[in-house]
Amino acid sequence: MSSADPAPTSSVRSWWGWGRAERALSDDECIATAAALPGLPDRPRPVPRLADVDLPPSRITPPSPLPVSTAPADRAGHAYGKAYRDVVRALDGDLSGAPDAVAFPESEAEIVDLLDWAGSAGVAVVPYGGGSSVVGGVEYRGGGPWLSVDLTRLDRVLEVDRVSRAARIQAGALGPVLEEQLRPHGLTLRHFPQSFEFSTLGGWLATRAGGHYATLYTHVDDLVESMRVVTPVGVSESWRLPGSGAGPSPDRLFLGSEGTLGIITEAWMRLQDRPRWKASTSVAFGDMAAAVGAVRAISQAGLYPANCRLLDSGEAALSGAAHAGECVLVLGVESALEPVDGRLATLVGLARDSGGQPAPSAGGGRDDAADAWRSSFLRMPYVRDGLARMGAIVETFETACTWDRAEELYATVRSEVAAAVTSVTGSPGTVNCRFTHVYPDGPAPYFTVLAAGRRGSEVAMWDEIKAASMEVVGRLGATVTHHHAVGRDHRTGYDRQRPEPFAVALRAAKAALDPAGVLNPGVLIDPAPAVPG
Amino acid sequence: MSSADPAPTSSVRSWWGWGRAERALSDDECIATAAALPGLPDRPRPVPRLADVDLPPSRITPPSPLPVSTAPADRAGHAYGKAYRDVVRALDGDLSGAPDAVAFPESEAEIVDLLDWAGSAGVAVVPYGGGSSVVGGVEYRGGGPWLSVDLTRLDRVLEVDRVSRAARIQAGALGPVLEEQLRPHGLTLRHFPQSFEFSTLGGWLATRAGGHYATLYTHVDDLVESMRVVTPVGVSESWRLPGSGAGPSPDRLFLGSEGTLGIITEAWMRLQDRPRWKASTSVAFGDMAAAVGAVRAISQAGLYPANCRLLDSGEAALSGAAHAGECVLVLGVESALEPVDGRLATLVGLARDSGGQPAPSAGGGRDDAADAWRSSFLRMPYVRDGLARMGAIVETFETACTWDRAEELYATVRSEVAAAVTSVTGSPGTVNCRFTHVYPDGPAPYFTVLAAGRRGSEVAMWDEIKAASMEVVGRLGATVTHHHAVGRDHRTGYDRQRPEPFAVALRAAKAALDPAGVLNPGVLIDPAPAVPG
Repeated sequence: MSSADPAPTSSVRSWWGWGRAERALSDDECIATAAALPGLPDRPRPVPRLADVDLPPSRITPPSPLPVSTAPADRAGHAYGKAYRDVVRALDGDLSGAPDAVAFPESEAEIVDLLDWAGSAGVAVVPYGGGSSVVGGVEYRGGGPWLSVDLTRLDRVLEVDRVSRAARIQAGALGPVLEEQLRPHGLTLRHFPQSFEFSTLGGWLATRAGGHYATLYTHVDDLVESMRVVTPVGVSESWRLPGSGAGPSPDRLFLGSEGTLGIITEAWMRLQDRPRWKASTSVAFGDMAAAVGAVRAISQAGLYPANCRLLDSGEAALSGAAHAGECVLVLGVESALEPVDGRLATLVGLARDSGGQPAPSAGGGRDDAADAWRSSFLRMPYVRDGLARMGAIVETFETACTWDRAEELYATVRSEVAAAVTSVTGSPGTVNCRFTHVYPDGPAPYFTVLAAGRRGSEVAMWDEIKAASMEVVGRLGATVTHHHAVGRDHRTGYDRQRPEPFAVALRAAKAALDPAGVLNPGVLIDPAPAVPG
Repeated sequence: MSSADPAPTSSVRSWWGWGRAERALSDDECIATAAALPGLPDRPRPVPRLADVDLPPSRITPPSPLPVSTAPADRAGHAYGKAYRDVVRALDGDLSGAPDAVAFPESEAEIVDLLDWAGSAGVAVVPYGGGSSVVGGVEYRGGGPWLSVDLTRLDRVLEVDRVSRAARIQAGALGPVLEEQLRPHGLTLRHFPQSFEFSTLGGWLATRAGGHYATLYTHVDDLVESMRVVTPVGVSESWRLPGSGAGPSPDRLFLGSEGTLGIITEAWMRLQDRPRWKASTSVAFGDMAAAVGAVRAISQAGLYPANCRLLDSGEAALSGAAHAGECVLVLGVESALEPVDGRLATLVGLARDSGGQPAPSAGGGRDDAADAWRSSFLRMPYVRDGLARMGAIVETFETACTWDRAEELYATVRSEVAAAVTSVTGSPGTVNCRFTHVYPDGPAPYFTVLAAGRRGSEVAMWDEIKAASMEVVGRLGATVTHHHAVGRDHRTGYDRQRPEPFAVALRAAKAALDPAGVLNPGVLIDPAPAVPG
């Protein structure tokens, strides 16, 4: 492909913000959304025209057979992920760190050629799926020349094994693209992260993504039957096995490797029958302690609800799902085999035992709280962008910890991050929380921060708040990320929580698989001697 | 400890065979058990007296503060695991490969000291939990001096977190030892491999052991919250996290590492409430194809039975659980929360839809088939030893594959291994099969081989049959082991199925963590340069 070719993936996608360009909030919508937030300007900042933004000249000239584009729209569209700080930098017209070129391989052979060339030329390679990283996973901060490798042209479901309920799927398939190909077979991968529309199978695998479902199969990891990964020293393909005890799992080394060890090109994924029965409801709680107790009881009951999302009072109020001061637990149950009303009733009973007030419709069907939550869920990132244009600081971070520390974590993080917000921005913001996933041994709390920023300083302000959040989360022994991944933004917290001998092993594995050190440098680990001392 | 001290762990354990010495079959029981098998001698071979067996002189003299024994009973008792070939070698009085010494550390600090000394002295270190390996995992075949490190004195439950349902447990705790300490808390690890009585938590983790339960949490892997591992370059301790997406899982690198990367000293394990409701029953099938279809339907229904064990007609006949020619599916359901009769009835309904004949008591309670199976299960290894004394070849191997290949695998393995038995022993034996674990995407078939051996050639004969089994399993793309681990005996099959780039990464990780190369050399991988070429 020459650089004059149109870039199909950029034509409808916003180059500066979330998702599709046409779904971005209008100026008036931005103003309306920010109305409740004091201290913001009257008007949203304009979205720069791409033609007006300075792109540094490309420093690389890959040999012509390689499928590489240097078109400005491609380079701009692949400069950042979709974190708040990415959106603000783009709105600022700061594309100084954009990739020198973007590759659009259409085959595994082209990926091999790209890696060979990049290794010999010393060009950093950053794999790019849907580009929805919120942790700096798809940009490069090393200063040297780099290539963004967009995998979305490898988007086919190659084989379906109906008997074993599995499919071989190319890593560049976006969520809707792969589900559409599975639908005629009556099967679904049933992995629905919030980014579903704009993220790929390969991205999910490389980052150990978390799906919508709250229990049991939360991360994509458990849905993997086998993986195929192009590394600079060869192609790794594990066997299709439902369960194996043969040595450390090869797949588990590549799951979460975030592009540092190789480029995932395809995977056999475990599928499920499409659910035929669904029921959901909500339960209100007067305080967070009672709600946490209820969620814990449910998570330890072995009933595996599809949804078990606890909104604290601030979050519940925002979603319109509760009376003032109440926490809300949204419960959902699904089955492809049999009606689920009985299971939902059992779950509601457990919640009631812990002091919950079931919604009037409890016991079956859908209710307003669940619907209200769902409808706002997929709109959130667009609202985030609108608020960013209004000068707000609006971002999320997430973690997981064991139940014995859950209440302390919730209270301490909220209070310390709120203090950081006040200290950094000069006025109080809001710090709300929901539990997105729950396990028998602990929840995954997800925090939302909303505050008024100061034009031109928003990124620095957020970085300072984020550092405070990472510090308190790490101090309390909670993970730096439950499902957003590490990337570059979570390195401090990751370095703290990762056992040093594991880092030694990972650096050695990296040096062996990527001797030129070109694969997503700076993510997870820094290049270092394989053997210490 | 001086070598004159008594060795408590050897006093009741058989040094040559399975389990407790006093439970071994008497001569008369050996004869009775082998009665149905033609071509065997009239009398069992005698069990040699330990005092009559030649032990080579120990070649090592660890410094005196180290907790090391060279007592003959310790060295003999740690020479082998408990595979058929191990038992026969011991009965032959062949202890030429016994460890030069056995260490009994009582603290992590002593393990650090042992590794430091072994690394500097160039002595191979083989971790030893309960010693129940059936794959050559706890012996050393390198010819040089070696130390068996028995971890059973690190056997305490150190902390229990009732709220999160987790406990910090030392790796040397045998199954009953740790369950006894958890019982007062009303909690259970609920991991019950057949070796439960004679295997340790650390051994389970190092080998990715499979428990008794047929679905969902089959391998011990998913029960791990965090692990602590002593490596030669430092202690690795992961954080207690219910779920994390921060990079490749550190625990998953050590799970299945079989002592090659470090010695696991403790782990926080996820526990469960003790089940209050149980029900089980059995369903008969006229042929294996129908039975496989039923098990597949059940495995894909999301109902997670605790037991879902399919016995082929040969296996069913041996267990006394079926009419001639019938296959039997044993189903069991458990819950700590609510009655399970409804769930069992649903499972039985699925089996009936696939052509199964439920046992008369189906729908609740226990029945004869389930009881018959259970009662013979724990006795099996002792019977195996008795048959070995009678000159029989009696051993098992196990695998896993996807459902699309399950029937072909079952038929092909049975026929090719039966042919190998005839070719090697000169007369037909039996090759039976059961499915021990089932997943939505495939079963774990477990094969039993029984044949008449020729005195003095049994090990060579079995090795030839085993090689044939490993060849056919690998050719069909099934794993070399579902839960028995790799050790030394499965290296050929493991080398075939393990992706080469993963081997490159694993060798590099090993070289970085174990620079002296003393940790269980020959297991999983051979020492090799970290960077290829």
